[in-house]
Amino acid sequence: MASKKVAHTNTRWSDRAQSISPFHVMDLLQKAQKLASEGHDVIHMEVGEPDFPTPGPIIEAGRQALADQKTFYTPALGLPALRLAISEYYSNHYGVQVDPARIVITPGASGALLLIMALLVNSGDGVLLADPGYPCNRHFIQLYDGVPQLIPVGEDTRYQINGDLVAKHWASNTKAVLLASPSNPTGTLVPEEEYESIANEVARRSGFLIVDEIYHGLTYGMDAKTVLSVEPDAFVINSFSKFFGMTGWRLGWIIAPEDAVPELDKLAQNLFLAAPTPSQHAALAAFSQETMDILEYRREVFHQRRDALLPALKQLGFKIPVTPEGAFYLYADSSGLTDDSFDFAQTLLQEKFVAVTPGLDFGFNKPDKFIRFAYTEEKDRLLQAVDRIADFLR
Amino acid sequence: MASKKVAHTNTRWSDRAQSISPFHVMDLLQKAQKLASEGHDVIHMEVGEPDFPTPGPIIEAGRQALADQKTFYTPALGLPALRLAISEYYSNHYGVQVDPARIVITPGASGALLLIMALLVNSGDGVLLADPGYPCNRHFIQLYDGVPQLIPVGEDTRYQINGDLVAKHWASNTKAVLLASPSNPTGTLVPEEEYESIANEVARRSGFLIVDEIYHGLTYGMDAKTVLSVEPDAFVINSFSKFFGMTGWRLGWIIAPEDAVPELDKLAQNLFLAAPTPSQHAALAAFSQETMDILEYRREVFHQRRDALLPALKQLGFKIPVTPEGAFYLYADSSGLTDDSFDFAQTLLQEKFVAVTPGLDFGFNKPDKFIRFAYTEEKDRLLQAVDRIADFLR
Repeated sequence: MASKKVAHTNTRWSDRAQSISPFHVMDLLQKAQKLASEGHDVIHMEVGEPDFPTPGPIIEAGRQALADQKTFYTPALGLPALRLAISEYYSNHYGVQVDPARIVITPGASGALLLIMALLVNSGDGVLLADPGYPCNRHFIQLYDGVPQLIPVGEDTRYQINGDLVAKHWASNTKAVLLASPSNPTGTLVPEEEYESIANEVARRSGFLIVDEIYHGLTYGMDAKTVLSVEPDAFVINSFSKFFGMTGWRLGWIIAPEDAVPELDKLAQNLFLAAPTPSQHAALAAFSQETMDILEYRREVFHQRRDALLPALKQLGFKIPVTPEGAFYLYADSSGLTDDSFDFAQTLLQEKFVAVTPGLDFGFNKPDKFIRFAYTEEKDRLLQAVDRIADFLR
Repeated sequence: MASKKVAHTNTRWSDRAQSISPFHVMDLLQKAQKLASEGHDVIHMEVGEPDFPTPGPIIEAGRQALADQKTFYTPALGLPALRLAISEYYSNHYGVQVDPARIVITPGASGALLLIMALLVNSGDGVLLADPGYPCNRHFIQLYDGVPQLIPVGEDTRYQINGDLVAKHWASNTKAVLLASPSNPTGTLVPEEEYESIANEVARRSGFLIVDEIYHGLTYGMDAKTVLSVEPDAFVINSFSKFFGMTGWRLGWIIAPEDAVPELDKLAQNLFLAAPTPSQHAALAAFSQETMDILEYRREVFHQRRDALLPALKQLGFKIPVTPEGAFYLYADSSGLTDDSFDFAQTLLQEKFVAVTPGLDFGFNKPDKFIRFAYTEEKDRLLQAVDRIADFLR
């Protein structure tokens, strides 16, 4: 069995570098790629990346921008035309008015987290986060010597933080709450009625509310509401990666309170100068009707995959008590099948060539009991994986 | 006259955000753009970006990559083929053997600084830097609550740190030395014979040597040597932005000691996932003979501009005692013409529509006495700017 923890005894590197753990899934991904290169038919359900390439109209806009020699720096806050297009999207799609001046274009949601945490977190400051959650979120807090204050969440709150939990866990050093809706790894949303309660608890403490909405668009049977419809002063993090299918282009955005924008501008100038120019021009085509039709079709495909995979996994003995409304993940309780989801994932890959992500990457809240399944392969492949897991369990 | 300092009294934001100053040139750039939009013929010598677009073969490779749907994430360390191409470049161009496994592809030199400082700097650790220098360098140290330890440098050391200065300024908390060769803003190189002396002083103290080589290739009448030919364990920062003309693509690289690579990989996974994919594929064409011929031609153009601008500025009364061998900057002593280079730059722009950067952005070493001229306009335009400055001084 592979070891779960890497001992850090090398004092050449900063405390920060030593405190940030690697993604365990990377190790698994490498093993999966090695097995595939040896000729094994690996089914990949381990990576958080859509299997669809970027939609054609966006690619064409990118190619045209290059032909037009759009290769110079843009302003640090981003192309004005793209900020305007995003503003119009919020108006049309969410019915929320957002001044383009409040929109900051970033190199992916990573760039957004880099800026927001730099802006808000002093050494020793705490940020409340749901556990399980996306590991980079807590690592960006540690990057600045802040303290990730993890709130264990379960099926009773749909794996999300609510107002009561904010009130209960807020500490004297707490500065902000970071929500993710839909969540990675659980795919669940913050219930609409909870946003108000959370926002009130945060505002009462003069804290900041940050919401990661990067899986917006990928919700099934419903549309997600942006937190801005409840709390206009929230920091919103969004991305062209997941719904818009632009992962490798490294492009995202922040919607920030007005008084934060000059500070974010200054930080962006210093930390990355600007988001990639060809990506920004390409993204101007992301909101066209032609692109939206493609994305709507893809959303339906993801929906069908979820509806096929969810009952099949339950049939195998995985417990998924809360039906996830979004993203492309199922976070399944494997405790009826194994005591150790990490070992289970390693052995499943080795013996049946099915790659999944054990809970270990997502925090400290019973990670041994959970496995994340990404439905980023075609439906038939997902069902084939289910058959292999059935064999494995026999 | 515009104010030089912004008062920071807003306690909503982190100490870090408040301690990092904005680029004053941005304010000047905006004024220049406003004047241009009002119909004035502004000559831009204020921005550190080549006026040439990306070479055609690189653009074509980028367009082809998009047509081939190369839009997914690459590994965090970068495309293996690009790491190999860079390794071959070091072998062919510098005669230095660099294992591709030691090359980390980053989103620009910004991404390289982000990773290296995260890896090396604990809160309170010091890094030695030349003053004047590129402001982001010290800001990346402040980002992690480190201490930029600025060494005032002058014409006697060609505006560079040398071994004696390292020995003199090394403090108990000093962890590393960051050199830039060619330097922004001075355009000067670290003399070859000094590298060994600096490396020895750093090694004796078990410190780290980091060298920013992002202006390599843009040297006139000579080629710059990489620090790796003297000190194989140095961290090298390089970029496709300046010499290769790929600013907006956001692509650079680190060459790191072997034992640093797993840590840099982990930090890259967390901080930006990977550099932009289309940019990485495009850069595969950066080392082709066709591209190199274009870049060699451009280098000659920059050389001619420097040779025209340098004597013309001296003629006006600017002092440039050291001839800069590289980059596209002249850092001119304006103290014979004005007591206040900031005011001079503002007024020159307002009255004569010539935009230049006052010393203020580059540190605390007599900034009032210096002006940076970027020769990123055509030679005739540069000489026209000289005529306007002559008028201005009359």
